[in-house]
Amino acid sequence: MRILILGGDGYLGWPTAMHFSDAGHEVTVADSFAKRKWEVELGIAPLAPVPSLHHRVRSWKRITGKTITMRVGDLTNARSVYGLLEEARPDAIVHYGEQPSAPYSMQNRTAAVETQVNNVVGTLNVLFAMRHACPDAHLVKLGTMGEYGTPNIDIEEGYLTVTHNGRSDTMLYPKKPASFYHLSKVHDSHNIEFACRIWGVRATDLNQGVVYGVDTDHTLRDPLLRTSFHYDHVFGTVINRFLVQASLGAPLSVYGKGGQTRGFLDIRDTVQCVDLAVHNPAAAGEFRVFNQFTEQYSVLDLAHRVQAAGARAGLAVQLEHLDNPRAEAEEHYYNASHSHLADLGLVPHLLTDDSLDRMLAVVHAQSGGVDRADLAPTIKWKGGGARVQV
Amino acid sequence: MRILILGGDGYLGWPTAMHFSDAGHEVTVADSFAKRKWEVELGIAPLAPVPSLHHRVRSWKRITGKTITMRVGDLTNARSVYGLLEEARPDAIVHYGEQPSAPYSMQNRTAAVETQVNNVVGTLNVLFAMRHACPDAHLVKLGTMGEYGTPNIDIEEGYLTVTHNGRSDTMLYPKKPASFYHLSKVHDSHNIEFACRIWGVRATDLNQGVVYGVDTDHTLRDPLLRTSFHYDHVFGTVINRFLVQASLGAPLSVYGKGGQTRGFLDIRDTVQCVDLAVHNPAAAGEFRVFNQFTEQYSVLDLAHRVQAAGARAGLAVQLEHLDNPRAEAEEHYYNASHSHLADLGLVPHLLTDDSLDRMLAVVHAQSGGVDRADLAPTIKWKGGGARVQV
Repeated sequence: MRILILGGDGYLGWPTAMHFSDAGHEVTVADSFAKRKWEVELGIAPLAPVPSLHHRVRSWKRITGKTITMRVGDLTNARSVYGLLEEARPDAIVHYGEQPSAPYSMQNRTAAVETQVNNVVGTLNVLFAMRHACPDAHLVKLGTMGEYGTPNIDIEEGYLTVTHNGRSDTMLYPKKPASFYHLSKVHDSHNIEFACRIWGVRATDLNQGVVYGVDTDHTLRDPLLRTSFHYDHVFGTVINRFLVQASLGAPLSVYGKGGQTRGFLDIRDTVQCVDLAVHNPAAAGEFRVFNQFTEQYSVLDLAHRVQAAGARAGLAVQLEHLDNPRAEAEEHYYNASHSHLADLGLVPHLLTDDSLDRMLAVVHAQSGGVDRADLAPTIKWKGGGARVQV
Repeated sequence: MRILILGGDGYLGWPTAMHFSDAGHEVTVADSFAKRKWEVELGIAPLAPVPSLHHRVRSWKRITGKTITMRVGDLTNARSVYGLLEEARPDAIVHYGEQPSAPYSMQNRTAAVETQVNNVVGTLNVLFAMRHACPDAHLVKLGTMGEYGTPNIDIEEGYLTVTHNGRSDTMLYPKKPASFYHLSKVHDSHNIEFACRIWGVRATDLNQGVVYGVDTDHTLRDPLLRTSFHYDHVFGTVINRFLVQASLGAPLSVYGKGGQTRGFLDIRDTVQCVDLAVHNPAAAGEFRVFNQFTEQYSVLDLAHRVQAAGARAGLAVQLEHLDNPRAEAEEHYYNASHSHLADLGLVPHLLTDDSLDRMLAVVHAQSGGVDRADLAPTIKWKGGGARVQV
């Protein structure tokens, strides 16, 4: 298959590209390097330096003999997107190419608008370019479980069958996201569903949980093939941040009570889920939603798990409850369905003590250059933040 | 009260501004004149020439002695919006300032992106500027009944109480809009609800039906106070277009079977509803949704009503079923709640034979300059349109 990975320089995009290339597919990665620019502006960096995408593509060729084609372009530039799709003529487009951080989007007006314009316009451009260049291609779009919020009823996969006043309909699941970033993903989902309805686009919306993990089989093959691992308060996800805090002997920063429950998955399962979606495409005109996570935990549960892993490694790890910088319920019902990917054959890598111990060891070995200031959540949902409000 | 009308040059904005000014409020109108630019680009014009907003504000002063303050600015320009709100310090902001046409948004990629960026960024800027300049002000935002689509269950006012697997929650009503324009309004609604939740903004989202009518009491006071009346396929709403077709002896253009049922209201009731919302503000942090229409009709019912009005006026009016340019159900269940505004005291102007006869007479008298080419729906939802697809 011809597979185009948008956001191929990212934490998940690069391992996905190697996975498909290794399996013999014709892979193109595209990126604008916007995330690297945002890192520079915020003065933050991944745990270990990540070679340029150019360098990693060349290393992949040298190490495996396989070619990943690289293109540089911004999804908000329509001519660039049309040209990219005309050239790549993909069978599947895996779309990670968005601003991926809730705290980033909550800094101020500029960042909120930038996030929504970047994500919504980029996805609109992809949809129009697909109609033009590859109307039969399958769009595999990364969304987030955060689109749903924390409703008091079970979360289903994209749709909810409602009976009301004696009549019934199956409707898009009502979403209540909790940041301008999460809102951008809800906007995307609505736009993509509409494109499926009117143009017959094939689309799978992967409402992904919180990803953790350092490595996949392919990143482990050579340090020059590594992917980015963020521990900071902007791009770092909670388990990854806890692992870095544990390795430093810094307290694990629990936001508020820590009763916030979310779905989680191992980075290797992100790649596996995307593979399953690509190889089992949506039908023409189908807008399909998969909830992409393998286990549910509360933040406090996770802190205790990482604390125990620390103890096993001889690290004294404390917990610290910070004032919650976010606006979110800290105690709530949470039960989210996630059977569609399991039905397609997903075999999860669960968060075992063994996997925690291995991740902690890797992180500990790399934690010499950590800037502890980047662990503190300085961006507040109710106002204030890292920059002036403009 | 200090009342700021965004989009004050428009079909509804200008009559709203006169209404509040006449009632003794301190009114500021702001507009970027974007809609006049879009008209120029499309080569379309209202039925009768509309004086500039500058001229109308001066005429209003001359005729009534009352001052409406005018400011020119674009809501997508954040500095302009912040400055406007700092200067006007409004108690209520009535926000009509968006690209208002579904067909406009469906022309091509450029128009779809322009519509979503203009509407979403404009509203985000208003929300951030409110937080900065007037956090206790009440945002009265014009949405559309088209956000809901045509679900197989009753449409409620913004929220739906759902029981699922033995648990219950009151959730945002799931929406399924049918154009990139309608999608932009859904995006706005989600963004505004979030701002209410995190910052305590007061907001009323008016999900308005299809407006018809030529005049309000204030526009009738002088031809220099008139508002725009569009009959074209881009900005003309269905009853207004039918009235122009009837006055020309042209067939009434029914899209498809005409079973499409929608909510409708008289332009005088738009003004009345906005008045009721402004004088009964949402609470701090409340995101309130009113369905703003007074009657439900199918397109075919309306065509027959206008045909009968034509007969009473001595005009032989035919019906013509065109291939539907839109992607929409032409036979469907439709039952939308609209009790909140009635509970606040709305006394509707219903679509009587008398009101139809009076509107037809006014339109007939002004129809000498109609360009019949502008009646044909050349913009197709499934592709193609007035311009090249870019």
